Amino acid sequence: MAIDTFELMTATFSQMLPALKNILSKAEANCALRNIDPKVMLTGRIAPDMFDFTRQVQIATDQVKGGMARLAGAEVPSWPDDESSFGDLAARIDKALAFMSGFTPDQYDGAETRKIELKFPKASFEFQGREYLLGFVLPNFYFHMTTAYAILRHNGVEIGKQDFLGG
Amino acid sequence: MAIDTFELMTATFSQMLPALKNILSKAEANCALRNIDPKVMLTGRIAPDMFDFTRQVQIATDQVKGGMARLAGAEVPSWPDDESSFGDLAARIDKALAFMSGFTPDQYDGAETRKIELKFPKASFEFQGREYLLGFVLPNFYFHMTTAYAILRHNGVEIGKQDFLGG
Repeated sequence: MAIDTFELMTATFSQMLPALKNILSKAEANCALRNIDPKVMLTGRIAPDMFDFTRQVQIATDQVKGGMARLAGAEVPSWPDDESSFGDLAARIDKALAFMSGFTPDQYDGAETRKIELKFPKASFEFQGREYLLGFVLPNFYFHMTTAYAILRHNGVEIGKQDFLGG
Repeated sequence: MAIDTFELMTATFSQMLPALKNILSKAEANCALRNIDPKVMLTGRIAPDMFDFTRQVQIATDQVKGGMARLAGAEVPSWPDDESSFGDLAARIDKALAFMSGFTPDQYDGAETRKIELKFPKASFEFQGREYLLGFVLPNFYFHMTTAYAILRHNGVEIGKQDFLGG
């Protein structure tokens, strides 16, 4: 059994991103119900030196953008990271889904050996495509998805595992 | 580009489980340093109605056991869930890695269409193999891995994203 890279990414993102969008709308409704300023939830953190909720959603969607583009050998667009409401974050999720839809399976021929280079302020990483997808894109995607979920749960939003899994 | 199921699972688990083991040892050392009873950390939670740290590690390793066995059409063994220390949890991670090593790539021929049935007290789920792996095993594995990490971060253990990613 082998799973096509394109299919692996699109199946994953198509299940998880709409689930995250649904979670956002539950969080927004919960803020209204409890009379909580949405900003409180959007800037919530698990630890003072971890990113806040907004940034978690941004980085989760960045994995979609980066994974789809880099493995196809395409340019990774820069998105402004200026979201400041649940609605803005929902729009960013839509943007990631639309970006994903712009690619086709044939763009991933030979992607497993494509050289992928990631440059961060403090470090650079070089991967082969397969390693980048399994060892970087997926763990990071799920890390930030789950941390976003955890911030809401910690703040009393009524969501459960099934909301996370979606599908 | 296509990725073999066996390879997808073993590459993922071989990177993430040793990373989790390393995180456990950092958490244990942190408890000693701050004179905190390890039980406090092992029973820590992100929300009162979420599972504690110990259970998160148990369920993460259950995905390894369930994914490897079910997709090979093998019996899923029952493990007692009686871990009560960081050492016990490290041993459970080793057990999951050893279990994984007992399988070979050829056992996953045709696994993508294998019918997988999951029975829980409140619900049953039926999947095809591919859907079970991408839509259940991987999201659940990463969900519980990340929640375990988040509980430690919330409790002040000095770990970072690179510890989570391992590799």
